[in-house]
Amino acid sequence: MSGTPVTAAPATGTVVTGLDLGGTKIAAALFAADGTVLARHTRPTPAREGAPAVLDALAAAAAAVDPGGLAGVLGVAAAGVIDPRSGMVTSATDSIRGWAGTALGTGLADRTGLPVACDNDVRATAGPELAALPGGRGSLLFAAVGTGVGGALAVDGRMLHGASGVAGHLGHLPSAEAAGLPCTCGGSGHLEAIASGPGITAHYERLTGTPVDRLETVAVRAAEGDEAAVRAVTTGAAAAGRVLGGLANALGPDRVVVGGGVPRIGALYGDTLAAAFAAELMEPLRGLRPEPPLFGHDAAVLGAAALTTTLPLHHPGAHR
Amino acid sequence: MSGTPVTAAPATGTVVTGLDLGGTKIAAALFAADGTVLARHTRPTPAREGAPAVLDALAAAAAAVDPGGLAGVLGVAAAGVIDPRSGMVTSATDSIRGWAGTALGTGLADRTGLPVACDNDVRATAGPELAALPGGRGSLLFAAVGTGVGGALAVDGRMLHGASGVAGHLGHLPSAEAAGLPCTCGGSGHLEAIASGPGITAHYERLTGTPVDRLETVAVRAAEGDEAAVRAVTTGAAAAGRVLGGLANALGPDRVVVGGGVPRIGALYGDTLAAAFAAELMEPLRGLRPEPPLFGHDAAVLGAAALTTTLPLHHPGAHR
Repeated sequence: MSGTPVTAAPATGTVVTGLDLGGTKIAAALFAADGTVLARHTRPTPAREGAPAVLDALAAAAAAVDPGGLAGVLGVAAAGVIDPRSGMVTSATDSIRGWAGTALGTGLADRTGLPVACDNDVRATAGPELAALPGGRGSLLFAAVGTGVGGALAVDGRMLHGASGVAGHLGHLPSAEAAGLPCTCGGSGHLEAIASGPGITAHYERLTGTPVDRLETVAVRAAEGDEAAVRAVTTGAAAAGRVLGGLANALGPDRVVVGGGVPRIGALYGDTLAAAFAAELMEPLRGLRPEPPLFGHDAAVLGAAALTTTLPLHHPGAHR
Repeated sequence: MSGTPVTAAPATGTVVTGLDLGGTKIAAALFAADGTVLARHTRPTPAREGAPAVLDALAAAAAAVDPGGLAGVLGVAAAGVIDPRSGMVTSATDSIRGWAGTALGTGLADRTGLPVACDNDVRATAGPELAALPGGRGSLLFAAVGTGVGGALAVDGRMLHGASGVAGHLGHLPSAEAAGLPCTCGGSGHLEAIASGPGITAHYERLTGTPVDRLETVAVRAAEGDEAAVRAVTTGAAAAGRVLGGLANALGPDRVVVGGGVPRIGALYGDTLAAAFAAELMEPLRGLRPEPPLFGHDAAVLGAAALTTTLPLHHPGAHR
């Protein structure tokens, strides 16, 4: 898996603010009508101060990239399960305190005076990958492997949202490699428990009985030939490849993209994932291979800006 | 899981012939414009005689239900991976000799003189289930558990076909319960290897070291309290429930239907599947439960007739 990341947003025809809300930081960018970046800004997420403080910080980040009020619309990509139709945070972990139940769309529209489109960060990131398919009409299976395992699914050029905005949660499919392991969702045996960054690190700790500080340490040891490290990395990669291959059999996508931080740890991960993926495929899908994202580290703010062209807008003052 | 099967087809506004091609038999029915059945016919599938003989038998079945030539259009539901756009059998097992690569749409249009819509039998069966959702616009996860494990997925009221018509192959997702078991597709560890009828029977044989003639025997022994039989049935049911729950997390369907012959072996199967399914669900999906099909044993011919209202038609003489 290789490729040169794209760093300009798709053209939207108007000036757009894109916001990416994560558990630790907020990223903002102002995009010209042709997709070029006019300004950037990041600030910490006040994750322990409650939802109103987070909405205030998002509005402040939008103001910081657009002091002249050029933007006509704002797109926000946020952690959590987001329903873009209602603009609500359907559910969320406690990485942002009190985030579940927040009216993200109208709350941010009221604070900025702009119409707002919102979606979860993984779907937002996947949007430009979908738009890049020939004719923008194909089907996409997008996985984001990082602290968790998330994803996005698109069919016939349309992103799937699913009931309550839940579509794309690829990390909570069963995985033989994760049998018996507890998952962050409260279930057990799910892909995320073995294939996420923390899942790989925890597996290394189980194999060696020794604590390890972070995934990169496991990756370095794997590169040095440490057998347990190789096993932890390849087990997580193979588990992800197998579930993605199985999902490909169920969905028949035109393109499969694997993004997130974990694939960046090295070729051992990507090669193992690709081989496990290929071994799962039914005959008509032979030849399908996982690819790296086309878009680079800016992908979430790029995708957030692009949401304004495809999703319902939430307007200031439009309360129930 | 319970319910009263529906036996009339959805109204199509015209007289339609529906054909269901399986590995052992062909079922045909002629439907009036309001969906009522005017005539029925079944005949054996000449599965060892090659694709032209099978197409001839399909045409003969269509003629048998419609000697007066009332039908204006014909829908056919067939075993194998079918691409409804090209009308081709993309791939198939050898249960029908030479079936892969057959031009089903034009081959049958030429033999009957009627426009033909075609799809695989599971998607055809799922069509009326989708149409029965409120407004016909929801999302459906349909599983068919029988000799294999197949399925169909629909989003926003539209059936997914996927690349080469492959969408809906739910049996080839990884399952912890199937770890190491060979699958009919050439892979291993897939759901179908433990949850299909032959998968459950083979598991009972592995647990007891004793051959058993068929699934119903295992079901009867389970009902009598035979521990190995209970374990074979519940392992297959739980594996299916877990994969379907994980798929629900990934797709966010409005309705989940489990059909096919295996769920009919008794409440132990359905109850175990439902409990395993529920245990997998992410919080926003709590309350979603697998349901039995609305349509009864006629579902495939009903669904075949309904294909003519949603799919491209292949016309007589329209060769490349």
